[in-house]
Amino acid sequence: MAEAKVLSGAGLRGQVAGQTALSTVGQAGAGLTYRGYDVRDLAAGAEFEEVAYLLLYGKLPSAAELADYKHTLRGLRSLPQALKEVLERIPRDAHPMDVMRTGCSMLGTLEPELTFGAQHDRTDRLLALFPAIVCYWYRFSHHGVRIDCESDQDTLGGHFLYLLHGKTPSELHVKVMNVSLILYAEHEFNASTFTARVCASTLSDLYSCITAAIGALRGPLHGGANEAAMELIERFSSPQEATAELLRMLERKDKIMGFGHAIYKESDPRNEVIKGWAQKLSEEAGDSVLFPVSEAIDKTMWEQKKLFPNADFYHASAYHFMGIPTKLFTPIFVCSRLTGWAAHVFEQRANNRIIRPSAEYTGVEQRPFVAIEQR
Amino acid sequence: MAEAKVLSGAGLRGQVAGQTALSTVGQAGAGLTYRGYDVRDLAAGAEFEEVAYLLLYGKLPSAAELADYKHTLRGLRSLPQALKEVLERIPRDAHPMDVMRTGCSMLGTLEPELTFGAQHDRTDRLLALFPAIVCYWYRFSHHGVRIDCESDQDTLGGHFLYLLHGKTPSELHVKVMNVSLILYAEHEFNASTFTARVCASTLSDLYSCITAAIGALRGPLHGGANEAAMELIERFSSPQEATAELLRMLERKDKIMGFGHAIYKESDPRNEVIKGWAQKLSEEAGDSVLFPVSEAIDKTMWEQKKLFPNADFYHASAYHFMGIPTKLFTPIFVCSRLTGWAAHVFEQRANNRIIRPSAEYTGVEQRPFVAIEQR
Repeated sequence: MAEAKVLSGAGLRGQVAGQTALSTVGQAGAGLTYRGYDVRDLAAGAEFEEVAYLLLYGKLPSAAELADYKHTLRGLRSLPQALKEVLERIPRDAHPMDVMRTGCSMLGTLEPELTFGAQHDRTDRLLALFPAIVCYWYRFSHHGVRIDCESDQDTLGGHFLYLLHGKTPSELHVKVMNVSLILYAEHEFNASTFTARVCASTLSDLYSCITAAIGALRGPLHGGANEAAMELIERFSSPQEATAELLRMLERKDKIMGFGHAIYKESDPRNEVIKGWAQKLSEEAGDSVLFPVSEAIDKTMWEQKKLFPNADFYHASAYHFMGIPTKLFTPIFVCSRLTGWAAHVFEQRANNRIIRPSAEYTGVEQRPFVAIEQR
Repeated sequence: MAEAKVLSGAGLRGQVAGQTALSTVGQAGAGLTYRGYDVRDLAAGAEFEEVAYLLLYGKLPSAAELADYKHTLRGLRSLPQALKEVLERIPRDAHPMDVMRTGCSMLGTLEPELTFGAQHDRTDRLLALFPAIVCYWYRFSHHGVRIDCESDQDTLGGHFLYLLHGKTPSELHVKVMNVSLILYAEHEFNASTFTARVCASTLSDLYSCITAAIGALRGPLHGGANEAAMELIERFSSPQEATAELLRMLERKDKIMGFGHAIYKESDPRNEVIKGWAQKLSEEAGDSVLFPVSEAIDKTMWEQKKLFPNADFYHASAYHFMGIPTKLFTPIFVCSRLTGWAAHVFEQRANNRIIRPSAEYTGVEQRPFVAIEQR
């Protein structure tokens, strides 16, 4: 083997592991772009389905293309019977990300991607189906109800809320889900996306790549920060209490989730967007605790640590105001990020070399085998 | 973001992505060592369970420790009812690696790894259960039989053959399974192991990491080479026919699976071992075609291309002589490599930083958003 090159720093931080045309993170100007478009503009002016189309098909759709695409997705919402039966066998106390991972993997046995020519169709199906996978399991295991997984909701976000609550969501809630799904859709070579690309580099099928990515997103260092933020926010009944306790937590050097970012150094461009919508939801709900508590924590973190809220922090209260159980926050991330993951899989396949790095050996020197009688 | 360092070559080839004390591949002396021991010595003198113990627990076991460990594994063979019911819902024509992936993921919902303190127990359970996951599905979907997943077989290899065939395997077959499982157990930062480590680096659970690794191994550039070798070998009824057709295939620049290696440059140390056992199996079976055809292909590849057989090539005929259907070859690889994957997950957890590389952006420059009415 040729002498391997030792990289500075663990975790490949700051090391280029491949090329992408999908997004930029933390570059000059817009903090986050999808195929050149500022994510803030997309969140303000586009529907999530437009963004999904942009990532998966390479351009923003025309009005006719978008209508077609949404029609296609609406036609793909029916959950196969065998998959329902599998979801019914997953316990109530299972981790919802394990439900997503298993549901995705099982679907791969029922509707396999037999050739890469099917990659777009298989992705559209997963996109249409992920809300039903998590909501069918949730409603069955928690409420004993076998829900109908079809709805006449026009958008994926509205469909998710309809399946979860069993009733038509408000326009505001549909709008916020739409914005949230846009903000979480794509983020360059984060750990789950890189997992999907390593998997894709063996020329494995799409389901394997997405299942692998779900598994990586499940980790508390990746997805789940909005759930942790919610658990923090819920502990306080007033901004004063939040500030006082947060100061004590910082003194104890507790880890506060939802602040700072590995790549963004000054602010997370997604924060201002979701914060604005969280505030609107708070006003609609007549809330006088959750949003003020969130702002108090935000203010204290900045004053004390110069740490800014990332995309996850105000997502917590936003989701909460829409009646979404905290444990389902990360599965919503999956419903959105699927688009980025799949687009990265397509990109990896189009210009592939197997991702097979080397390791620095730190173990014992070569040694003679000792038969078991002599040990 | 700090200026990212551009690496030479795609696929991180030859780039150090982390440390390991588990194995060396292609270094001077032994071509492959597990914790310092030459894999050829392990294959000659140890049982697979000793090697699993070595990888997972850090040292070769004493006779008493090995007896305990095998007793523990034998006690973990019972398939949960809910998992059986899931396996029964996977179609007969599903890819067997999708079965392994789904079975592993489903088990994670039934017997979750709630803390990292459970990592060894969860691994032992997977090790004991993987043969049953694939064989239960195979026998049910192909033969309509609900097999008993317990057996009094002392070893994992014997247990696999017992579940597959429903009868006590010969001593020779148990021995060869044992050798095969040792040869496939560990191989540094190959793509599936690296997938497991990227997933582990988010501090996700063991099942997510192993499920992700199975998905990566499924790809034809990684696992599956022994299946492709079998399909080639089976086409010929004599060494003469094999040689003649192979020359034509090479002229057409067809890809011949089971030869050469990304890291080994002169020979694959695992080949001489499995080749010897494949020959013994051939003699036992009174075979006058399969092994001679394999040797003819081997000889032609060397003469024409200076390419040597890798671990996969003679595995094909070896498995075939033991009556293993070709589509189950890669699942056996999973039963073995689980030990390496899990040991890498433990190692990643013990000294973790999230694996989050950067990408070189090759997309369009930042551009203004265009509302849908203007597209």
